[in-house]
Amino acid sequence: MTTVYTGIGELVTNDPARGDGSALGIITDAAVVVADDTIAWVGSSRRAPDADERIDLQGAAVIPGFVDSHAHLVFAGERSAEFAARISGQPYAAGGIATTVGATRDADDAALEANVAHLVAEMTAAGITTFETKSGYGLRTEDEARSLRIARHFTTETTYLGAHVVPAEYRDNRDGYVDLVCGEMLSACAPHARWIDVFCDRGAFDVDETRHVLRAGIDAGLHPRLHAGQLDYGPGIALGVELGAASIDHCTYTTDDDLAALAASDTVATLLPGAEFSTRARWPDARRMFDAGVTVALATDCNPGSSFTTSMGFCIAVAVRDMYFTPAQALWSATAGGALALRRNDIGVLRPGMRADLAVLDAPSYIHLAYRPGVPLVGTVVAGGVPHRDRGTN
Amino acid sequence: MTTVYTGIGELVTNDPARGDGSALGIITDAAVVVADDTIAWVGSSRRAPDADERIDLQGAAVIPGFVDSHAHLVFAGERSAEFAARISGQPYAAGGIATTVGATRDADDAALEANVAHLVAEMTAAGITTFETKSGYGLRTEDEARSLRIARHFTTETTYLGAHVVPAEYRDNRDGYVDLVCGEMLSACAPHARWIDVFCDRGAFDVDETRHVLRAGIDAGLHPRLHAGQLDYGPGIALGVELGAASIDHCTYTTDDDLAALAASDTVATLLPGAEFSTRARWPDARRMFDAGVTVALATDCNPGSSFTTSMGFCIAVAVRDMYFTPAQALWSATAGGALALRRNDIGVLRPGMRADLAVLDAPSYIHLAYRPGVPLVGTVVAGGVPHRDRGTN
Ligand SMILES: [Zn+2]
Ligand SMILES: [Zn+2]
Repeated sequence: MTTVYTGIGELVTNDPARGDGSALGIITDAAVVVADDTIAWVGSSRRAPDADERIDLQGAAVIPGFVDSHAHLVFAGERSAEFAARISGQPYAAGGIATTVGATRDADDAALEANVAHLVAEMTAAGITTFETKSGYGLRTEDEARSLRIARHFTTETTYLGAHVVPAEYRDNRDGYVDLVCGEMLSACAPHARWIDVFCDRGAFDVDETRHVLRAGIDAGLHPRLHAGQLDYGPGIALGVELGAASIDHCTYTTDDDLAALAASDTVATLLPGAEFSTRARWPDARRMFDAGVTVALATDCNPGSSFTTSMGFCIAVAVRDMYFTPAQALWSATAGGALALRRNDIGVLRPGMRADLAVLDAPSYIHLAYRPGVPLVGTVVAGGVPHRDRGTN
Repeated sequence: MTTVYTGIGELVTNDPARGDGSALGIITDAAVVVADDTIAWVGSSRRAPDADERIDLQGAAVIPGFVDSHAHLVFAGERSAEFAARISGQPYAAGGIATTVGATRDADDAALEANVAHLVAEMTAAGITTFETKSGYGLRTEDEARSLRIARHFTTETTYLGAHVVPAEYRDNRDGYVDLVCGEMLSACAPHARWIDVFCDRGAFDVDETRHVLRAGIDAGLHPRLHAGQLDYGPGIALGVELGAASIDHCTYTTDDDLAALAASDTVATLLPGAEFSTRARWPDARRMFDAGVTVALATDCNPGSSFTTSMGFCIAVAVRDMYFTPAQALWSATAGGALALRRNDIGVLRPGMRADLAVLDAPSYIHLAYRPGVPLVGTVVAGGVPHRDRGTN
């Protein structure tokens, strides 16, 4: 089965060998042929080959499907009252992550699975065709393992984050918790996970604990990624680069040495505008990263505490407005950058042989994602060659 | 025909005599009865009367439909390249408003009407059930008049803004243009408009010109409203209050005297977060306005130059994050506040006898509009009793 999409006003390929020769490889008046789940042909609409089905997009822009390389989707409950108090500067006996841990442990599998399904439907409608998701709200062997088992129903990009926070019952026994994370819990989780992650920051896990956990994960066949530099400067970024992490995420607090290390490595810096937006935190300095030659990704960080968004379009608009990405840098980071942050070479670029993941915009240019903030511009989403047009039918 | 909506997890009525007694008048586990185009009954789900049709909303939050008291929807073309250059700090031979004026004059009626229809469909999907829209991209008698004629097909809240900018052909004859705006152009426009508006600011129209235009409009039976305080301090706000403007819009630069004058009047200050977001401008100080006792509205300012959004949810999220509204203040300002800014007493509040304009959220609380930024949470929208469920079917 082949489909040719014609009349694409602006096609972002992320292939600099095509079109305008920019990093986005933009072709105007373009066409794309999809054969089953794969891109078969990309080029000018005038030269488009025939196919079983022909769909005229009438000047719409088409972009690669968004790659969301950082999300926390397996949880129960919500924390809107805590959010409202925090953002209004009012006192609140906030449970923080512990609130979500309690609700997640109490939820049955069906409830957790329904919650993930709901968020994944939102993501698809928002144009996200690949997403990563983490454990980290179970913090007990059985709950971490079931979180990843459930996550696996929805994505291959599953991340074991037992080292998210130290749970209350281990408050006086941090070493015991780290041993659990590296021992029994790791053994139960590794079969369901591709990645291992640690929250390495002030008040979370220190650099020695982080090294210990990441090494144990690597020994168990997992690949490292890292939360670091969100709350303070620290040795986390250097450690992540040293251990070959695919991505270090947040990177709000970075030294010049951190940036030099990132730039000299194939570790991506993943920025999470939703988190700074929702916690009113300091913005990472993306221009400094681009100037230093760091590869940057954008992700949603979707989670019920600090960034409860599934809208990559929103993240792009905020990255442009408040982090000083250009619109082109933001689009690239949310697609090709996300693919690199997941070490995937089959997505993020629209080129023959790649997975047929793309989003049709209700706009003539990808720039509208930043120019029209908050407007749900993603129309039809094609994921693995299959069109989804069901946005908003709740 | 009567319909009862039951199982409303959280109903925002904006009637402080109901529910929790706050300004939002929140009723939990609520029901609403709609009779034709009117609210017939509001109260607890357990006591809901029977109706011809019964719809269980299964715990969803319901809010009054958004009232967007400031938009510029009648135009042709778009300015994404100009936006991209400006936001990236790159030079661009920007035409600014003149670009849109040229495109609007060149467009035929059908094209203008199709553009408005497209934006109105976005607004409805975003939960906006009443909106104002202005002329101001014609700046010639025939083009201002046809802009308002077209706008009238979509809304009763039409605003004559001939005094938007001085068009190029009058650059050396400002007085001539003001005479045109107050004379022949006013006569042609008044039959299609409810309101008259002037852009009174540094580089736009000065206080004497503004007074002249507003007085002419009032004499022709129009009601005044005003753009003022966007770019600089000035006498515009005091003038608007003096002339009894329903609303003064932008209000980024306000003195204590301005706020005292607003607070002592029934003139609303309408804030436009999309404009500050998209132009990276200074935020108005909403807390200072609330402290001074000013009535505040939130609106989209939807226009192709400085705020091309139709998402009131986005405006609420930004108002909370960057303007320090509480979530409750933001919700009220985008509904009841907007109604006051349009001097409407039939909308903005869910109480028997009011127009049946409401939005069902895919969320348990209105707080999610700020807590989940960028996510299109508005599901079914009921406008004048008629349900719209067609979001995103492009
Ligand atoms: Zn995270
Ligand atoms: Zn305006």
